[in-house]
Amino acid sequence: MDPQSMKKQTAGFSERTALVLRSYLPILTWGPEYSRQTLVNDLIVAAIVTVMLIPQSLAYAMLAGLPPQVGLYASMAPLLLYAIFGTSRTLAVGPVAVVSLMTAAAVANLAAQGTAEYIGAAVALAFISGLLLLGMGLLRLGFLANFLSHPVISGFITASGIQIAAGQLAPVLGIHAEGESLLALLKSMLPELGQINPATAAIGFTSLAFLFWVRRGLKPILRRFGLGERTADILTKVGPVIAIAATTVAVWGFELTAYDVKIVGAVPQGLPTLAMPPFDVTLWTKVLVPALLISIVGYVESISVALTLAAKRRQRVDPDQELVALGASNIGAAISGGFPVTGGFARSIVNFEAGAETPAAGAFTAVGIALATMFLTPLLFFLPKATLAATIIVAVLSLVDLGALKHTWHYSRADGAAMAATILLTLLEGVEAGLLAGVGLSIFLHLYRTSKPHVAVVGQMPGTMNFRNVKRHTVVTDPKILSLRVDASLYFPNARFIEDYINRMVAANPSVRHLILECPAVNTIDSSALESLEAINHRLKDGGITFHLSEVKGPILDLLKRSSFLEELSGKVHLTQYDAVFSVNPELARHTLRAQRVSSV
Amino acid sequence: MDPQSMKKQTAGFSERTALVLRSYLPILTWGPEYSRQTLVNDLIVAAIVTVMLIPQSLAYAMLAGLPPQVGLYASMAPLLLYAIFGTSRTLAVGPVAVVSLMTAAAVANLAAQGTAEYIGAAVALAFISGLLLLGMGLLRLGFLANFLSHPVISGFITASGIQIAAGQLAPVLGIHAEGESLLALLKSMLPELGQINPATAAIGFTSLAFLFWVRRGLKPILRRFGLGERTADILTKVGPVIAIAATTVAVWGFELTAYDVKIVGAVPQGLPTLAMPPFDVTLWTKVLVPALLISIVGYVESISVALTLAAKRRQRVDPDQELVALGASNIGAAISGGFPVTGGFARSIVNFEAGAETPAAGAFTAVGIALATMFLTPLLFFLPKATLAATIIVAVLSLVDLGALKHTWHYSRADGAAMAATILLTLLEGVEAGLLAGVGLSIFLHLYRTSKPHVAVVGQMPGTMNFRNVKRHTVVTDPKILSLRVDASLYFPNARFIEDYINRMVAANPSVRHLILECPAVNTIDSSALESLEAINHRLKDGGITFHLSEVKGPILDLLKRSSFLEELSGKVHLTQYDAVFSVNPELARHTLRAQRVSSV
Repeated sequence: MDPQSMKKQTAGFSERTALVLRSYLPILTWGPEYSRQTLVNDLIVAAIVTVMLIPQSLAYAMLAGLPPQVGLYASMAPLLLYAIFGTSRTLAVGPVAVVSLMTAAAVANLAAQGTAEYIGAAVALAFISGLLLLGMGLLRLGFLANFLSHPVISGFITASGIQIAAGQLAPVLGIHAEGESLLALLKSMLPELGQINPATAAIGFTSLAFLFWVRRGLKPILRRFGLGERTADILTKVGPVIAIAATTVAVWGFELTAYDVKIVGAVPQGLPTLAMPPFDVTLWTKVLVPALLISIVGYVESISVALTLAAKRRQRVDPDQELVALGASNIGAAISGGFPVTGGFARSIVNFEAGAETPAAGAFTAVGIALATMFLTPLLFFLPKATLAATIIVAVLSLVDLGALKHTWHYSRADGAAMAATILLTLLEGVEAGLLAGVGLSIFLHLYRTSKPHVAVVGQMPGTMNFRNVKRHTVVTDPKILSLRVDASLYFPNARFIEDYINRMVAANPSVRHLILECPAVNTIDSSALESLEAINHRLKDGGITFHLSEVKGPILDLLKRSSFLEELSGKVHLTQYDAVFSVNPELARHTLRAQRVSSV
Repeated sequence: MDPQSMKKQTAGFSERTALVLRSYLPILTWGPEYSRQTLVNDLIVAAIVTVMLIPQSLAYAMLAGLPPQVGLYASMAPLLLYAIFGTSRTLAVGPVAVVSLMTAAAVANLAAQGTAEYIGAAVALAFISGLLLLGMGLLRLGFLANFLSHPVISGFITASGIQIAAGQLAPVLGIHAEGESLLALLKSMLPELGQINPATAAIGFTSLAFLFWVRRGLKPILRRFGLGERTADILTKVGPVIAIAATTVAVWGFELTAYDVKIVGAVPQGLPTLAMPPFDVTLWTKVLVPALLISIVGYVESISVALTLAAKRRQRVDPDQELVALGASNIGAAISGGFPVTGGFARSIVNFEAGAETPAAGAFTAVGIALATMFLTPLLFFLPKATLAATIIVAVLSLVDLGALKHTWHYSRADGAAMAATILLTLLEGVEAGLLAGVGLSIFLHLYRTSKPHVAVVGQMPGTMNFRNVKRHTVVTDPKILSLRVDASLYFPNARFIEDYINRMVAANPSVRHLILECPAVNTIDSSALESLEAINHRLKDGGITFHLSEVKGPILDLLKRSSFLEELSGKVHLTQYDAVFSVNPELARHTLRAQRVSSV
């Protein structure tokens, strides 16, 4: 090999290496183009997002049953790691409502709230979830998220929203409640209704009213003051910060703790210590199933947001690399003492609308939260839990969409049933039961639907070479020929249906001597269907009937050639349905005009 | 209402009732036409089948770990009930190899062999299996059998055959063995190899050699003696009876029990007492999963045999009514002290080839076996168990088809993998694990395959109105128009794939202003896909691209009209791909010849 071509090859190799590196480390793509202008822009965005994320992090930690600092920890490392591995320029990862609820449900089975074991289990959940996401990403298993059909995920989020809101009513009222399902929650709250704490309830309901007003009424006012659409939008998202500041000051100023108002209290100052979660196979085995469900639900939420935002700027998102990035983020969360995270809808929207141009904005946000953790936590001492609960309630109620159930049911009974089952089971039995039931039911209904495909008896449109459903058109048929068009791929869910259908049709039409199966909509034939076709061929032969196929697509024909079916076929494979009929009964076909011959599709 | 029309209505009503009755009681169809000639014919058939069934019933009871009379009991009531409820004229129900193995595996977990609890559990298994089958039949749930894809059932039967044959080697050698998997079986047999009983082994191997010779060598000899094809076939099926008679006489004549040859011993004479199985919810709950698996495996075996035989005489079989008939048969088996039964391949073939014309032949066979149970059981006292084991081995080795694994793998990797997993897990972990793994894997692989459908970028064939894949044909395209043809139905397994695919294509083609999705192969659009289409529409709109559909089938368009998608669509739905391109860029379309316009398919 001459040095020239060797050099070329080396260049080719290092180019390929660079390509692979860039696909796994998207930072290598945008990093080198980073400019001072982008830096200034990303810094401003980071400041806005940081202000919004601090109360959110505290609130979702509380929702997961964890101490407030755990929420802050979960909002640093994940943002940094996503900036390195993520393909979306504007996605913001951190704790989100549904995943926090799922964490609470999973961890409550393993340890008592308030113990070190409880925090340890949440960290293990983030770690295993991270490993699963990373594994799925490296093995390109992103399609696993497809198991969650849209009605199931939509029903699940609605039910989770209802359950979270119901659960947060307790801190708003200053009472105690616990339970994995809505039923259990309400049952535990009922006897406590006499113990409502008036001061807490006053703070809670005032916050609720204020936050709802910010959502609905503030934006038009801001617009009237001449603020732009985007700025007004961003300012309304900062509403919770105002509520938190005002109620914290109120508790401190009026010394409301004397009236038994629950506050956040001392939040440890300073950054988390980095440490690998302790190696504990027993614990890891126990969290495996919830970690898988959290991973998939989190991924679905994250990828939907990422795709939506990317499309607005015609950017690309790589679904498999997103799994890697979320995996790294969750492992990072675990190592820095946090709990499961994912790409959140609200925070990403703020990040996007504030004008984030690169994932560096996320990294700067992480720095912002780190600074807050180091210096601002004393300010959070008097923050009432009722206000945090109110911010959660307002955030999750926007997730509840019972109208979707009506639309889905109207569009498709099967999808509506899967959605209703997911909602009901999540509310009655808890998040895992609801999710698993939904997935199981939608796969089951999918197989059920595909098990009964549409099959039409077709006849020749008089004077043409076209064949149409005998039930819908006036067509010419021959009692000796039975032509069937099957409008589905042939595979195991429907293989036996076709066998039985043909068996019935042949029994009902004793004069038939030729059966033609028209296959323009057959996109695949699996082994089960092949076996059925072989059985049909043999049975028809036993009954003195020849079996023909027509309009078989090229790839399907190639596939059939790998078996002995075509050799054993009593009839032939014809290019078009017309050819098939012509070969069997030229008399019938002669009626048609050759000029109108249509090429096969 | 005048009396005339009332009478008509009553007639209509009673006609409908008769129709429903006939569909649930097929005996009402063939019973009234029953003639003396048919009677004589069916009686002869019954005599032949009875002779064949007696050793088979004893052998399969032994295989299930049950006393011999339980096998005889399971061959009476089920035949009678199938004669009333079954739609196949020639199917013969009773104990079969694979179901007996599954019974042994299920019952071994609940009670010790030889105890009354063991028999009770087998009876409960038949009862619950019968109720499940009956329920599935009445609710028309026959499609549940589709969950067992052909590679899974084929792999399962092969593995069961290997395991049964290996297990029966023990009685042939006069040693002891037990285990739910092949591995466990072989491990338990290994240390016993020193204790082989020579007399038993002599009987066992002589029987094996004789039976293999009967299978292979007897028929040509019989044909040479001038016997017809059918008669020769039937005589070779009676081979086991000769082996049993000869070895029984040998044990009796040479007093081989003194050499420790295990014999059947005393079989209780007389008919079973009919009794409902004791009401025992705990036991019933325990047998529910195995009963479901036995029901489905048994049903698949039975319906395959029934369809094959029916086709030979152009008769009809109703898959849902077959569930009812098998359900009644199993409940009958349970009430008469038997174990799970189904339509068997070997016995049905003999019944068919001997010339059975109606299910009455089966009923007469039941009477034949009843007579044998009353009067002939003393003759079975000296029957060596080694001979029964040999008949089982010869019968099940014909089920083993490892070549099918090769063919299936060659035809489709996914199907081959599902089959290999079923075989391996059945042999290593037992029948239930193997079956469940196979079902799970084939559903998983099915979803995986459908999650990545074929999507082609299409362009206009120059001078025509046809559009073809740009990768396969020289076509005309417009950088402002992106036309995609998706070769699959749109539903949850592939919804996100389409979203991502379009996102990537649009990001890679910045000049695109119109996206046209050509849908001739789209047979369904579920809620998840609808949601994806809506998301695609919004994202494209955000990116300044209009979204069009073309060649959407009528029923799909009707479906879409139930949602708000068509109102929100930024582009239009066009009848043909040509219309779509023409509406967007008349310049491009004008190049074509109108005369060659092809109607949409």
